[in-house]
Amino acid sequence: MARNIRKIALIGRATDLRVADAMSALGAHLAGAGYAVLVAADGAPNFQGINITRASETQIASESDLIIAIGGDGTLLYAARLLAGRDVPLFGVNRGRLGFLTDVTPAQMLECVDQVLAGDCIEDHRTMLGATLTSRAGKAQSMQALNDVVLQKWETGRILDFETTIDGRYVNTHGGDGLVVATATGSTAYALSCGGPIVEPNLDVVVLVPICPHTLSDRPIVVSTRARIEVRLLERPDTKAQITCDGAMLGDLEPGDVLSIGPTAARVTLLHPPGYEYFRLLRSKLHWGRGAFQQPAGSHED
Amino acid sequence: MARNIRKIALIGRATDLRVADAMSALGAHLAGAGYAVLVAADGAPNFQGINITRASETQIASESDLIIAIGGDGTLLYAARLLAGRDVPLFGVNRGRLGFLTDVTPAQMLECVDQVLAGDCIEDHRTMLGATLTSRAGKAQSMQALNDVVLQKWETGRILDFETTIDGRYVNTHGGDGLVVATATGSTAYALSCGGPIVEPNLDVVVLVPICPHTLSDRPIVVSTRARIEVRLLERPDTKAQITCDGAMLGDLEPGDVLSIGPTAARVTLLHPPGYEYFRLLRSKLHWGRGAFQQPAGSHED
Amino acid sequence: MARNIRKIALIGRATDLRVADAMSALGAHLAGAGYAVLVAADGAPNFQGINITRASETQIASESDLIIAIGGDGTLLYAARLLAGRDVPLFGVNRGRLGFLTDVTPAQMLECVDQVLAGDCIEDHRTMLGATLTSRAGKAQSMQALNDVVLQKWETGRILDFETTIDGRYVNTHGGDGLVVATATGSTAYALSCGGPIVEPNLDVVVLVPICPHTLSDRPIVVSTRARIEVRLLERPDTKAQITCDGAMLGDLEPGDVLSIGPTAARVTLLHPPGYEYFRLLRSKLHWGRGAFQQPAGSHED
Amino acid sequence: MARNIRKIALIGRATDLRVADAMSALGAHLAGAGYAVLVAADGAPNFQGINITRASETQIASESDLIIAIGGDGTLLYAARLLAGRDVPLFGVNRGRLGFLTDVTPAQMLECVDQVLAGDCIEDHRTMLGATLTSRAGKAQSMQALNDVVLQKWETGRILDFETTIDGRYVNTHGGDGLVVATATGSTAYALSCGGPIVEPNLDVVVLVPICPHTLSDRPIVVSTRARIEVRLLERPDTKAQITCDGAMLGDLEPGDVLSIGPTAARVTLLHPPGYEYFRLLRSKLHWGRGAFQQPAGSHED
Repeated sequence: MARNIRKIALIGRATDLRVADAMSALGAHLAGAGYAVLVAADGAPNFQGINITRASETQIASESDLIIAIGGDGTLLYAARLLAGRDVPLFGVNRGRLGFLTDVTPAQMLECVDQVLAGDCIEDHRTMLGATLTSRAGKAQSMQALNDVVLQKWETGRILDFETTIDGRYVNTHGGDGLVVATATGSTAYALSCGGPIVEPNLDVVVLVPICPHTLSDRPIVVSTRARIEVRLLERPDTKAQITCDGAMLGDLEPGDVLSIGPTAARVTLLHPPGYEYFRLLRSKLHWGRGAFQQPAGSHED
Repeated sequence: MARNIRKIALIGRATDLRVADAMSALGAHLAGAGYAVLVAADGAPNFQGINITRASETQIASESDLIIAIGGDGTLLYAARLLAGRDVPLFGVNRGRLGFLTDVTPAQMLECVDQVLAGDCIEDHRTMLGATLTSRAGKAQSMQALNDVVLQKWETGRILDFETTIDGRYVNTHGGDGLVVATATGSTAYALSCGGPIVEPNLDVVVLVPICPHTLSDRPIVVSTRARIEVRLLERPDTKAQITCDGAMLGDLEPGDVLSIGPTAARVTLLHPPGYEYFRLLRSKLHWGRGAFQQPAGSHED
Repeated sequence: MARNIRKIALIGRATDLRVADAMSALGAHLAGAGYAVLVAADGAPNFQGINITRASETQIASESDLIIAIGGDGTLLYAARLLAGRDVPLFGVNRGRLGFLTDVTPAQMLECVDQVLAGDCIEDHRTMLGATLTSRAGKAQSMQALNDVVLQKWETGRILDFETTIDGRYVNTHGGDGLVVATATGSTAYALSCGGPIVEPNLDVVVLVPICPHTLSDRPIVVSTRARIEVRLLERPDTKAQITCDGAMLGDLEPGDVLSIGPTAARVTLLHPPGYEYFRLLRSKLHWGRGAFQQPAGSHED
Repeated sequence: MARNIRKIALIGRATDLRVADAMSALGAHLAGAGYAVLVAADGAPNFQGINITRASETQIASESDLIIAIGGDGTLLYAARLLAGRDVPLFGVNRGRLGFLTDVTPAQMLECVDQVLAGDCIEDHRTMLGATLTSRAGKAQSMQALNDVVLQKWETGRILDFETTIDGRYVNTHGGDGLVVATATGSTAYALSCGGPIVEPNLDVVVLVPICPHTLSDRPIVVSTRARIEVRLLERPDTKAQITCDGAMLGDLEPGDVLSIGPTAARVTLLHPPGYEYFRLLRSKLHWGRGAFQQPAGSHED
């Protein structure tokens, strides 16, 4: 890897002891190897005797050459959001078992980090989505998402009725709890729980997955990442929806507003240790693989 | 348990070494304890020095006071079919991991069998379904099923179009690969793979689960076990279906024939060791339970 | 029908013109036939020249011999809740197309009401569920549901982790958006959108349907209406759930609280015009039936 | 359209009266306009007084400049197979309601054909898949598919256990009824009935959809059309599978054989009348759209 890495930021919720322990060990290891180590100031673990710099998140986002996210996949998503499209590679360490994005365990992390820093790693480029919420009055707010943009009913049990268009063409009128617009990366997150397919991470496609749709034929649709997807609520009394990007609030959607989702130049570079294979991760997460499948009492002799 | 058990039959595919080993150990154990032990003649393991009687399946079905099925759930289904409604309790030993019906492992089997024979066990009564296939010419064939009656396309890739009625009232016209009519017991077998719900085993309900239906709103229906379900193929060129009961062939269904499924007096009594709990078994089979669920990369911080 | 019907209440959202029109026509028809007609005071349509009595909802619930709900199924659910278990029959008129519970159209309503009042109708008894929410401090609130008791994440995008028990036995630990506990009646409502089966309305079973579960094997379970189902949230920061009964708020569930769902003596009697058939209604609602199924481009010649 | 169309072939099952009628009308119309019209010899309708040429299928495939498929989508798939990759545009007329590929009705066909011949039409290029079945002994057979390559259990109720690899990397071991490997075009055919997503037709992706999988987390996977997918059966007694391409038999798969599915240079050009929109077709086929969705009895007031 030709990357010139000197400043490494550690990000995680250090209130979790497992995260704090991994952070201390990584901090000591990296500082000992001569790297400048940045850690967000609040809630950080005790780094006594270690040469680390406490930094603000803004500083981390603008100065670091590599960010190591320690925790669950949510922590890595948070780090990606912080970067807001700046091309800084991310490396994910899970505090417990494997995540889809934080695919290195604490036990392996020191060895893997050394491999990564030596350039012995797999670069994995992931596309993001851009979401813009424009109010009836014309006020716009934007955000990017590595996993998904989610429209959900909010503060009312009332279901949502909404219309979707793709590149200006009317697609469908949906009734239900909402809609997940997921990247390939996000296909194994919330979209999967809602009945969406698994998408190979390097594909430039987006999946629209309705959440608990009333119409049973309202099924997931796979479209191009270049598609411009627009969502509008129908006029209904007491209807209100919330828009989140990777779990972070973008704003409320009300009748008359437009949620527009489309391509963005921003992308995320994940670094994986050598030997990383997407399907191995999938097998591990989904209890797949040789001899792993349950044998229901078949209608079939066994 | 007031049951007077003297003759015990062992049933299983002894060509599988794990089955043969379990069978030998059980045979020796039971013969040593003074029970008459029956084993079907062909393919049986070596019982040198053990006092067992080789018997035909007919003999086993008519003479034994308890049948121990060793193998997968298919073996227990086979034993249940052999009994054809005679009220002989069944005890299931799985050759490897747990099954839904063969819920004792080889490692536990000797202790569990002793408990069962001492009356220290749970009696678990399961209802069966009766299926009758009546040809256009009036010829009828019948069979019983503990798990399910399955209608499937056969010897042709062509999908099936068929109509269902319940108690004489028209329900639906289906297009697809077929239909599973499952008991509560069978709800965790093939029906589950086809999208059916899990049903508590003691409920007197039946689930109709369409197999890969063309109409996406053609969903599983739960009805009473007292319901009379009838299925007829629409007249189509090149259409042919096969009917199986617990995986055993009942016959072919052609346009003009009627498949009728309804209640039967036959039932099956399963014996479980003390401590048996249905939901524990379910958790084990379906990877459920505390801390067992995968954590997909959430849209949600974690 | 031996019912002695003299006072008839009309319930509906008269702000909807179609509801107001149906209400006026029905009110005139019934008053003309000599019945005492009660209508809730607020938002009622103009009954000029018609002998109707404006009454409070409490009065309606305690005095009427028959309630006619005009609107969508939600209106009939509202009327059922008002009765709180008092055995007053309900008759549902839909303002537009058919509902599952409001299965008479405005065009048919006068004729059907006359049939019903002449005793020429089908009595259809539906079981309800009782839900009790007990806080950590011991404070309890209760409600009944004809369709479903729903546990949902609330005011936070964070998914819920919760445990279920049935009759005191541990069932599963779930991660997801919540849980629908539906009666047979409610099986075609929200539960169906969440992947639950259709249940014949007269069956004494309840379906537990997880909402967008993280674990893909976390499937709907059918249990007896006599079962006592308990739900508890796991201790998590920032976790909060809302409990609704037929869409009406019962309260918030927090870690330490218990939601208990079980049988109740209350039941609902629906009156249908002669000729009513459940499966016909189902076909109409789900686009089922002869020739109605879409023909996807088959892998199969057609 | 710069295409120089002089010879037009009509393909369809003329034993169906609706097909024969459409064929006669189209034949007369096209011959009258001076085109050379080819029709496969057997089973053709009466073309008295019309100047058409009866031709073999081989002739049709090699000589025609445009093929009009009349019937269901299966007829158009058949025509595409006949062409075996030769770039002749296809135009589909459905005998009854709309198909996904035969998207013109008999009522519209004359006008639409004239538009198409005048070059006033939409060219729609669809990718195909190539499938090769190589036996243990090394014998290979190949076929192309516009919709899907399907692996299914065959002549035995026994479920299939099989392994999949993508580009040489192990993906999963599956137990179930088989696997659908569908193009974007085929995503709305059998794959949809098996739980797959809808894929925009112009995307270069393929969907692997397991058929009734035993493992509930064995979900559809979207991969690139450039991927090389291989499938092998596990060694099991009594296991046998059938491979079909667009419903036509490629051969049997037995343990030791390899099914390899990958990109092919062949593609299909569909011609649509002006105004054609994929999502409009989808709405029509799946009962989508404004006001079309059923309103289940909500947990929600309506």
